[in-house]
Amino acid sequence: MSALQNRQFKLKTRPQGMVKRSDFDFVTAPAGEPGPGEVLVKVLYLSLDPAMRGWMNEGKSYVPPVGLGEVMRAGGLGRVVASNDAGLSVGDTVVGMTGVQEYAVLKASQMTKVDPRLAPLPRYLGALGMPGMTGYFGLLDICQPKEGETVVVSGAAGAVGALVCQIAKIKGCRVIGIAGGPDKCRYLTEELGIDAAIDYKNEDVNKALRDHCPKGIDVYFDNVGGEILEAVLGQLAFKGRISLCGAISQYNNVSGIQGPRNYLSLLINRGRMEGFIVFDYAARYGEAASAMGGWLAEGKLKAREDIVDGLETFPETLLKLFRGENFGKLIIRVAGD
Amino acid sequence: MSALQNRQFKLKTRPQGMVKRSDFDFVTAPAGEPGPGEVLVKVLYLSLDPAMRGWMNEGKSYVPPVGLGEVMRAGGLGRVVASNDAGLSVGDTVVGMTGVQEYAVLKASQMTKVDPRLAPLPRYLGALGMPGMTGYFGLLDICQPKEGETVVVSGAAGAVGALVCQIAKIKGCRVIGIAGGPDKCRYLTEELGIDAAIDYKNEDVNKALRDHCPKGIDVYFDNVGGEILEAVLGQLAFKGRISLCGAISQYNNVSGIQGPRNYLSLLINRGRMEGFIVFDYAARYGEAASAMGGWLAEGKLKAREDIVDGLETFPETLLKLFRGENFGKLIIRVAGD
Repeated sequence: MSALQNRQFKLKTRPQGMVKRSDFDFVTAPAGEPGPGEVLVKVLYLSLDPAMRGWMNEGKSYVPPVGLGEVMRAGGLGRVVASNDAGLSVGDTVVGMTGVQEYAVLKASQMTKVDPRLAPLPRYLGALGMPGMTGYFGLLDICQPKEGETVVVSGAAGAVGALVCQIAKIKGCRVIGIAGGPDKCRYLTEELGIDAAIDYKNEDVNKALRDHCPKGIDVYFDNVGGEILEAVLGQLAFKGRISLCGAISQYNNVSGIQGPRNYLSLLINRGRMEGFIVFDYAARYGEAASAMGGWLAEGKLKAREDIVDGLETFPETLLKLFRGENFGKLIIRVAGD
Repeated sequence: MSALQNRQFKLKTRPQGMVKRSDFDFVTAPAGEPGPGEVLVKVLYLSLDPAMRGWMNEGKSYVPPVGLGEVMRAGGLGRVVASNDAGLSVGDTVVGMTGVQEYAVLKASQMTKVDPRLAPLPRYLGALGMPGMTGYFGLLDICQPKEGETVVVSGAAGAVGALVCQIAKIKGCRVIGIAGGPDKCRYLTEELGIDAAIDYKNEDVNKALRDHCPKGIDVYFDNVGGEILEAVLGQLAFKGRISLCGAISQYNNVSGIQGPRNYLSLLINRGRMEGFIVFDYAARYGEAASAMGGWLAEGKLKAREDIVDGLETFPETLLKLFRGENFGKLIIRVAGD
């Protein structure tokens, strides 16, 4: 085992503004061997998520920051190549926090075994993974959308957003997605069948929301924060609910995050804005996975992954998220299946 | 009746920043006579509320703005001096939206009759009136505080805040009030018996909150917005709840309202921020009035009014609210009982 060479991205400096390659050390080290209760996993696919930007910052959050000199944290899917735990065998396919590297020694108890015959492997990092759980609970549990209500989703062509749009449609809502560029908007309306899409790069979002939501916005699933959050707050319906999933427009602001200046719309409209972290729902992942798997099988839910080849592309591939260049769940293929 | 002269404050211009006397016309007109279903009310006490500032602005809100040339809107208590409705008689004491004037012709159906023997009259504009209902539902219904939780209240010596502090104590919470100046803070801890008070004019609110709320803030009742809202968000406990009652620190900002820059604390801490308007609870006012009346009678709840004499003082008296100069429910005595 110790002959295996492991390429890794380690965090070197805390980024100021946008992440750059020089914020990382790209190094090679021996892969290591699993101790008792551990497995050695060969990483096949890595999940790239907006939350990674926050993990690079100093300071208190819902998880500790990645330490300087540590392997960059990331979710991933891989195959067990050595096991020192009775629960997992060589050849098993697992998902968990592998980090941005080719091999990871991990506690078997922190890995989830998946069945590679049931779905394409990348899907376990998308619709059947954290983005799926996030969309399911963040929409249904936090906002409790009712049939006929108007639901607006930002980052609507992203990993979580596209699932939220479709779950809201399945629940009988009118769904308006906000995404960047005509291709993503066309995908939302033509392929996913949502009611309308707003291209924030080429349209006046305030005006478009007024046009598409004449009775106001009952539910808003927010992936982006910033001006789009303000535009939605300005047109919130009576008793509107906002689920705070993220604020990708703000994560790289050097001058700090912009708070919604019209937050008192919550008061005027008796609205509610609530945050959530998907990990809190771990005990109910089975419920969501079963629902999502069922909808996928019935063709009611479509999943799309944006797969980039090569671990070495990590810094630049991550930037695609913050530039809105990914189209679907962003994944790095580290090794072939 | 038409011989009665009625002094009135009419809105002349929409204020920029702080309200000033020249934003009003102070005029005298005949009192008018009640038509069918109407009463003529002699105003005894006027309620001065932070919300009045918002009513002076153009634009959509939960009620239409006061029109230019119209009598300034205000709640008040008065005595019926002429009645053209079977439901109210001359001599009845009533509360309702009288406006800033000495006499008002009002629809009897929009007035509430109160019993002048049960409480001092100004109390019907405070603990037994809108501030009481606001504190009761805004705390209990929106935040659902549980015994032992830490509750922070801003504007804690104000009309609503002082009631919220005491209701939270009655419910078994640890209560920290934020108010301006040592007198108000002493009142909160020594007279109202709340656990701690923070003098925002002379203390570092962030540090004081850390000291007084070592486990974080479970419930925040916000009357002020601005930097104090940010300080609380920065120390929100897991699943913390914020009730948005108002944002008095922001109402006179010429440069617009400051949104909470750290609103993503709601995400990190799985928190919730929710607005309400007391009018929505009209069907349940009886429940609150009965509870508040009972607590007042048992001595568990203390009410304090800050009464200023003379209708003519209206513009300057209103400013006391925005300068934090009132101490308890701010009321103008228009005429003796």
